[in-house]
Amino acid sequence: MNHIEITEEKLNLEKITALVTAPSCGAVSVFMGTTRDNFENKHVVKLEYEAYIPMAKKKMVEVCDQIRAQWQVEHIAIVHRLGVVPVTESSIIIAISSPHRKESLMAVSYAIDTLKATVPIWKKEIYDDHSSDWKANKECAWAAPNKQS
Amino acid sequence: MNHIEITEEKLNLEKITALVTAPSCGAVSVFMGTTRDNFENKHVVKLEYEAYIPMAKKKMVEVCDQIRAQWQVEHIAIVHRLGVVPVTESSIIIAISSPHRKESLMAVSYAIDTLKATVPIWKKEIYDDHSSDWKANKECAWAAPNKQS
Repeated sequence: MNHIEITEEKLNLEKITALVTAPSCGAVSVFMGTTRDNFENKHVVKLEYEAYIPMAKKKMVEVCDQIRAQWQVEHIAIVHRLGVVPVTESSIIIAISSPHRKESLMAVSYAIDTLKATVPIWKKEIYDDHSSDWKANKECAWAAPNKQS
Repeated sequence: MNHIEITEEKLNLEKITALVTAPSCGAVSVFMGTTRDNFENKHVVKLEYEAYIPMAKKKMVEVCDQIRAQWQVEHIAIVHRLGVVPVTESSIIIAISSPHRKESLMAVSYAIDTLKATVPIWKKEIYDDHSSDWKANKECAWAAPNKQS
């Protein structure tokens, strides 16, 4: 099962991992991308995410397909939050189950690297001096140039 | 901060990840080892874990030290459950935070591989025909031979 979701709600880790947990699996690997309080020596108060949702979902499904082509995993959940994400809260949670641990561990690493490089989601960093900066993910080959804030 | 815990309680994922979440970090990586319902074509109903606790804790601390010698991570939590662990529930949760994602992802993989190989924890598989089998982790170079059940 692939669970792909883009939401404005706070992400619920227990709920997302419960989606992938399966009796046939001995492993669940999880990655949480959290807002951190600094970027290039500036103090970040919060991040704000925007996405081109239809294309983002399409790319998220492609990542699931690519994972299943490489590793024997059972369930995949990828949930991205949009809007304002305060420091320490998650903007993305990826949870993958597999019968044996190696597959889900490798798949989670692959998923976050590939999502960063392919999914059209922009983030705005809001600094404590009230300035802000919209940017495409710098790893993203696909995205449009940075927006003006 | 290193949080090392061995408990008979059901593991609480939210609580364990909250221990490692930090404002300075953009990543939390998690591994959950769950009881699966089969082993070599036998139907497993539940697992039961026993540990030589002082040595297990010592080895868990060593794994934390080895991680910190290799990667810049912020907090590490390793919690192992003992006693009966039903199918789909976690026997171990490892959660590690880092400023950037690569470090916590690599550290979590290293942690579970190394714990499996070094920590003296035995598991008893209880099958649906009421038979059971105690075994040391087969990856463990350290452990005593399998116990008789």
